[in-house]
Amino acid sequence: MRAAVLRDGRMVLREDVPDPVPGPGQVLVAIRACGICGSDLHFAAHGQQMLDMTERVSRGSGGMAVDLSRDIFMGHEFSAEVLEAGPDTETHPVGTAVTSVPLLLSEQGVEPIVYSNHTIGGYAERMLLSAPLLLPIPNGLDLKHAALTEPMAVGLHAVNKSNIEPGETALVLGCGPIGIAIIAALRVRGVENIVASDFSSKRRELATAMGAHQTLDAAAGSPFDTVKRADKPAVVFEAIGVPGIIDDVLLRARSGTRLVVAGVCMESDTFHPFFAIAKEINVQFCLAYTAEEFAESLRSLAEGEIDVSPLITGEVGLDGVGAAFDDLADPERHCKILVTP
Amino acid sequence: MRAAVLRDGRMVLREDVPDPVPGPGQVLVAIRACGICGSDLHFAAHGQQMLDMTERVSRGSGGMAVDLSRDIFMGHEFSAEVLEAGPDTETHPVGTAVTSVPLLLSEQGVEPIVYSNHTIGGYAERMLLSAPLLLPIPNGLDLKHAALTEPMAVGLHAVNKSNIEPGETALVLGCGPIGIAIIAALRVRGVENIVASDFSSKRRELATAMGAHQTLDAAAGSPFDTVKRADKPAVVFEAIGVPGIIDDVLLRARSGTRLVVAGVCMESDTFHPFFAIAKEINVQFCLAYTAEEFAESLRSLAEGEIDVSPLITGEVGLDGVGAAFDDLADPERHCKILVTP
Repeated sequence: MRAAVLRDGRMVLREDVPDPVPGPGQVLVAIRACGICGSDLHFAAHGQQMLDMTERVSRGSGGMAVDLSRDIFMGHEFSAEVLEAGPDTETHPVGTAVTSVPLLLSEQGVEPIVYSNHTIGGYAERMLLSAPLLLPIPNGLDLKHAALTEPMAVGLHAVNKSNIEPGETALVLGCGPIGIAIIAALRVRGVENIVASDFSSKRRELATAMGAHQTLDAAAGSPFDTVKRADKPAVVFEAIGVPGIIDDVLLRARSGTRLVVAGVCMESDTFHPFFAIAKEINVQFCLAYTAEEFAESLRSLAEGEIDVSPLITGEVGLDGVGAAFDDLADPERHCKILVTP
Repeated sequence: MRAAVLRDGRMVLREDVPDPVPGPGQVLVAIRACGICGSDLHFAAHGQQMLDMTERVSRGSGGMAVDLSRDIFMGHEFSAEVLEAGPDTETHPVGTAVTSVPLLLSEQGVEPIVYSNHTIGGYAERMLLSAPLLLPIPNGLDLKHAALTEPMAVGLHAVNKSNIEPGETALVLGCGPIGIAIIAALRVRGVENIVASDFSSKRRELATAMGAHQTLDAAAGSPFDTVKRADKPAVVFEAIGVPGIIDDVLLRARSGTRLVVAGVCMESDTFHPFFAIAKEINVQFCLAYTAEEFAESLRSLAEGEIDVSPLITGEVGLDGVGAAFDDLADPERHCKILVTP
């Protein structure tokens, strides 16, 4: 079958990938759409760094056994249709539209569907999923939209971790897909004052479309200085993930701020503890989501609470993944590109 | 009257300080004991840095107007006896033993009693306090012990901010006065497994005396590696305040750790956001305490829940403050030195 794989830092089309065979508890599915995640771009460009950091933080208890000199399967934001269940496996009828948290259960344990030399991800015609984790896509939700369940769950998780109340002002720094997902989740939660900041006018438009009440051009000065004093944010969501941002928030934020770090900075960073101490800032670092949050995001999409159509700015086949990775560098053109095999 | 003042980076005795005169709402008190705080040592050595950092974080809205080229009054951990109320001021009878949060209310506003060219602190024979803030010292509590209400409140505040439950393991990094105060507050809260780490054997003994269930020699390896696996701490209290500690905790702590930063690091620091992201660590930076926590600490001391006598390792007169500042550099000899005018 066909799959786009990472080879020497570039996504290339392979036509000779053996069809995966479902084991007990597994289900073969036909992929209908798979979103390209910023972390995939980062892995393509800085794979060794990401593996090294994962190894360091796991401290010998695992890490990710990925060989960068061999082809790597990726794609963890997918929707699909059931094709065939493995032996002794009950699942939904053939043709059922499904999605799943990107984890593959096997006799060897639980493996993330994210970067792997052997486990096929969503940039392929077919892949294996885990029967106990399958979620049917309800209400006839467009499978292209359902593929965005995963990034929207990341935003929901960050918002849940913040414990924000509807009357508190939220400031979202960065309106890439994660920032946008946070804005959407804040809106669903009923937050009445959502301020979003980005350098890109296109992304600020997206932020407004997804629920931001006010957007700020990051080039026009610090959002902490341009927000009206009465609206000083209680909760700041950092969805940029580059060195220096955290320290800038600590310096400029108001006393008692809760800073939720949803951007993934892989480099070392410098900050001044005293800025945070003097204001008793709380910093909650976030990653991923729970299974419940994933299901909740799917429900929000299916019930129309969140309309992700403005986010989808492009669609490519498996032969277009490489070019799509390049195109995603331009925030004025793209937010989320879907791969539709 | 006599007072020890900071002059050119050294504490020196002055005998010519004019007696302060209480204004409306103020009370003149005779100081009975005042603890020397690590922040006083830091200010004596790095005053300009502390003023610069305070100025930066206040971003033009105040900061501390202290002139380092002139004498500076300090001392914010005190107990005293009421001498005389200001005009139209009701207060406790003359001779009442009192303490107070270190704030002076005046017609100009609220001023911290911490470092000042004009407001006298606890390293003096007499000082002004604010009638509405005075707390009588109950139960005949030794006034030398009552002087430690303030640092014990810092520990209580950090513990309150952590929301620790009795069944959760706490790891306290650093057993100086703040670490010790945290240990005491954890014990009062009923935390059943308090692990404390320090390089100094004397301080580890103090930690045990104040309620730690287990102490670790920091020189023998990381406490994260030496604590039994089942007891991996849920809450880590950082009470050291030097660069590098926070990153080390982020790297070694278990997933979901709450890190409470009670140590005051005035320098810039380097860390790896990814360590914290991968484990969804929460970092709560802390400073000081609330008025309620201050009163609660006084109650704990007065009712015998906390016995601070092991902490008091020295006592000097106003003429001995300079030498005491030097002596406090040795953790094997000293924890808290009281100045008793």
